[in-house]
Formats: sequence, C-alpha cells, structure tokens
Amino acid sequence: MSTVNVSVPATTANLGPGFDCIGAALTCYNQFQFALTEDTLNPLKITVTGAESHRVSIDQTNLIYQAFVNFYQHLDKSPPSIAINIELGIPLSRGLGSSATAIVGGLVGANELAGQALSIEEVMELAIAIEGHPDNVVPALLGHCQLSVGERGNWQICQVPWHQDLIPVVGIPNFELSTQEARGVLPKQLSRADAIFNIAHMGLLIRALETANTDWLAMALEDKLHQPYRQSLIPGYEAVKQAAIAAGAYGMVISGAGPTLLAITSPKQATEVIKGMETAWQSLDIIAQVRSLSLDTQGARIFY
Amino acid sequence: MSTVNVSVPATTANLGPGFDCIGAALTCYNQFQFALTEDTLNPLKITVTGAESHRVSIDQTNLIYQAFVNFYQHLDKSPPSIAINIELGIPLSRGLGSSATAIVGGLVGANELAGQALSIEEVMELAIAIEGHPDNVVPALLGHCQLSVGERGNWQICQVPWHQDLIPVVGIPNFELSTQEARGVLPKQLSRADAIFNIAHMGLLIRALETANTDWLAMALEDKLHQPYRQSLIPGYEAVKQAAIAAGAYGMVISGAGPTLLAITSPKQATEVIKGMETAWQSLDIIAQVRSLSLDTQGARIFY
Repeated sequence: MSTVNVSVPATTANLGPGFDCIGAALTCYNQFQFALTEDTLNPLKITVTGAESHRVSIDQTNLIYQAFVNFYQHLDKSPPSIAINIELGIPLSRGLGSSATAIVGGLVGANELAGQALSIEEVMELAIAIEGHPDNVVPALLGHCQLSVGERGNWQICQVPWHQDLIPVVGIPNFELSTQEARGVLPKQLSRADAIFNIAHMGLLIRALETANTDWLAMALEDKLHQPYRQSLIPGYEAVKQAAIAAGAYGMVISGAGPTLLAITSPKQATEVIKGMETAWQSLDIIAQVRSLSLDTQGARIFY
Repeated sequence: MSTVNVSVPATTANLGPGFDCIGAALTCYNQFQFALTEDTLNPLKITVTGAESHRVSIDQTNLIYQAFVNFYQHLDKSPPSIAINIELGIPLSRGLGSSATAIVGGLVGANELAGQALSIEEVMELAIAIEGHPDNVVPALLGHCQLSVGERGNWQICQVPWHQDLIPVVGIPNFELSTQEARGVLPKQLSRADAIFNIAHMGLLIRALETANTDWLAMALEDKLHQPYRQSLIPGYEAVKQAAIAAGAYGMVISGAGPTLLAITSPKQATEVIKGMETAWQSLDIIAQVRSLSLDTQGARIFY
C-alpha cells in the first residue's frame, strides 16, 4: 500500500482529580492521509482542510510529520517522501487533544506504511515519549476511557468502564489557553491533605464512571490539584459550571489544560445542559460551541 | 433487651496508595458484651479476656466506653450504668484497627441498647468523628473494602469490589509502632509528581481489586505518600516484602500505620507466602504471627 488514511479521536484528559493519568476518547475526529511519493527533492508536502486550517504549519515543524519521522528514526531508517493531507475536525489548542491526534496519526500512518513494523504497544510507548504524558495519546490510540500508570518502558494501561448513561458535553470557547501557561500556574508542591483529597476522589471517580452512581460522580469530579489554579485563566468558568449543574449536569471539569469545559450529564438532560452552558457564555459575550459527544470506542482507525 | 453482644472485624487501612481513605474488613474479630446494670454507684465495670487483656484500660478512659458515652452525649442523655466484657481477638496497636473496633463496638452497642435511636449513617458519622479518619471505622462498621470520600457531614461511602481470588495475608510482628510516631515521620508537603503517582495508582488499585488483574495489582500497590517514610520504622520490612513477592505475593504494603504487613496473593500461593514471610522475620529474630484471612462481608454484627 502506498496510501493510508488514519482517523484519530479527540480526547479529554485530566478528568477531574485524575491529572496526567486519565483521559477519554470522544466522537470527534481528525483525519490524516499519508501518500508515499517519489519526489526526493521535496520529501514533504502537507495540505490542510477544515476550520483553522491556516493555522497548521505545513513544513517540517508539523507535529504529524515530526511523529512520522520519529517513527523511522526509531527503526534507524530514513523516512520516505510523503504527501500528508490533514482534515481537521477537532478545534486546535482547546484542551481536546489535537496534538495527541497529530502524534498518534503520524505514528500509526508511518507504521502502516512500514507494514506494521511495530506493535501497538511500541507505537504507544513512542507516542507517550513524544507527548511527554500518556493521558491524551493512550485513549487517542486505543479509544475508550484509559488510565495510564507507570513510567517509560513500564506502563500499565487500564481501560476504565464508562457507563452509557453518562454523556460528555463539551463547551469549546473561541479563545485559546496555552498548555505551557496552564502548566505554569500549578504549584510544584502540594499539601498532604490536598494530595489525599485527589487520591480519594480518583478512586471514587473510577467507581462512579463504571456504576453511574451520580452522587459519587458529583463528588468525584472535584479536584484540588489543577482546577483551582487554572479556572481563573478561563473566563466564564464559574458561570458556565453553575449553569451546567443547574441544568442537570453531575459536575463540570476543565478538559485537558483547557479552555474547553467538560460537563457530564444524563441522556435526558443533555439538551438542557448544552443550552445552559451556551447561555452562560453568551451572557459574557463569549462565543462557544457546546455539544454532546459520545465515548469513542475504536481509537485510531486505519482505512483505505 | 438489657444485654447485647457486638462483634467487630479487624481492618486494614491505608491500602497501598490509598492513604486515609480506603480500608478493608478482615475475618478476625473483637467481641464486646454490653449489659445494663442498676449499679448507679459503680456506673462502669469492664472485664477483658484474650491475649494482651492486661493492657486494656478498665476505667473511664477505655475507648469502648468513651464511644459508648459519646453516643449518649450525642442524644443529650446520660449513659446508663453498664458492664462491658471485652473478648480480644485482634492484636492491639499493630495496624489492624483495634481502636476502630472499640469505637464501632461502643457506638453500635449503645445504639442497640437505645433501641436503634440512630441510623447506621449517623453511627458512622460519629465513629469517623471520634477516630478522626474514616478508613478503619467505615469497613469495621459495614464490612467489605470501603472507600470513604468527603468530609464531616458529607461522606460518600463506596464499596470497592474485591475479587475472591485475592487473598490477604497479614504478618503481625510482636512489636508496636505508635500511630503518632508513624504519623510524625510523614512530610506535610509532597511534590506534584508524587501526588500524581499516588492518584494514578489509586485508580489502578480500584480496577485491580475488582478484576484481579495481577499485573495491575502489582503496580497499583506502590505508594509514595507514606510507605517510603514509614518502612524504616518496621524492622524486617524489606526482607519480608522480598520474601513475600518471591513466594508469589503480588505486592506487600504496610497495614494501617504498621507494623503489620499485608501481602496480597492467590489462593494457591497463600501457604508459600505465609512461610516466606515467617522465615524472613525469623531470620531477623523477630517473632511474628503470619496468617491468611478473608474479607469480612458483614461488618459490625449484633447478637444476643
């Protein structure tokens, strides 16, 4: 095969108390086409379609291409000349794992063109190494909600059952928050009490997602590690959260490093929660896309 | 009824990464008999049987009696004159929740004599308030493995499924470690990285206990919050842990604040793990009782 298409889902990471370790794949996708070329003088050609396409770099700094090259370097080979077409379906730099789709897409595309030279575990290790943390790339690759525990070369990946009655609603405002800035506001040390708070809530979150016990879920989504420091970086956070909960959401958290906000609600209340979040943002003159998604259960998918 | 008997199970708390929030009830019991008397001049009479019985205070400082009195104070009543007989089955001050049995026993006995004036939730709130943390008293009262999340007046109690193929083995050395000393060595602050380590491992522990995925369990029992600081207070810790794992345990942790060590293993390997832990302690001239137990599924039980 000289052409391969890869579809990679959006992901929501840092779920409540689960900073840097838990993330879920959502039914919203970027698609990448990789076509081998014979053009050795121009080894890379990138085209991009979709909203915000002008913002994607089309030279060798492109993250998809960097992952693609990284794959071949890992095999001690030179990358082939390639034409990459990117079809953007996921908003950029909003806390929905667009970088993770680029990394996973580049690696999975390269691996497919190389005749599946690496196992999925090896692809995952490479993806985590490039991203620096596992909580977006693992669900982007495998689908579902995934908890990643361990360290380089020794990861345990644990699929976390997510009850079908728990509906993710994402509110994506039209401003950005750089991951670097969002990391910068986090303290390097925390009190033992705050650590215990998050440890206990993380345990409860795992059980709440599996059972859809909504009392547990409402408490389990609380966090003392990153959200108290980051919420002031997101205009409208408090108003949108109150509106989501008033409309029937069990809780609301920052998706990834933000600014997207993720509410979890019931199938019955989803429409009300969407309306509530939209209205709260509108009243602050902030434009935001709010919509309900489902859990993606396939992860990165290859098609021809 | 003027006489009531209460049986309360031992508990193992601080399970791996789950400091101050998760604990499991084990099939080893203290029994308490409460008999109303008419002796207003001597409102309290305590008798104690069992190993270490001479070490239990038999005056008003007795923790069972303090809990008993606390119950009546909560109802704005004077406690009746009472004769308490204590049958000790759980070693004292070893990290197996003997204090929690005293608190739960005193409250449950008083509540039964008062015609179940309080609900089990109210008894639980009182027990947590007396003990200061929930992870022993909640499973002592309810049985099973229990995760307690929240704060005074607002607890969510989550029963954590524990797969029947996971066998707890306790090694109880014949020395004590005061909870106060064990708390004293813990730092008040920890790094964000260590906190994230425990958060992720806690999530994995919940899934590992439910599924008996032993790769997950082996990793999930690791902890950076209390064990690294406390293990040097327990002579033999490292040797016993190595012996337990060499004999087939998935991991070994400090039970509560120690010095009891808790290994988790398979039904098939339990005998070997017991032997291994015993031998390791013997070679250091430390006498220890090592035995396998099961999860208690009843909690505090009333009988006549």
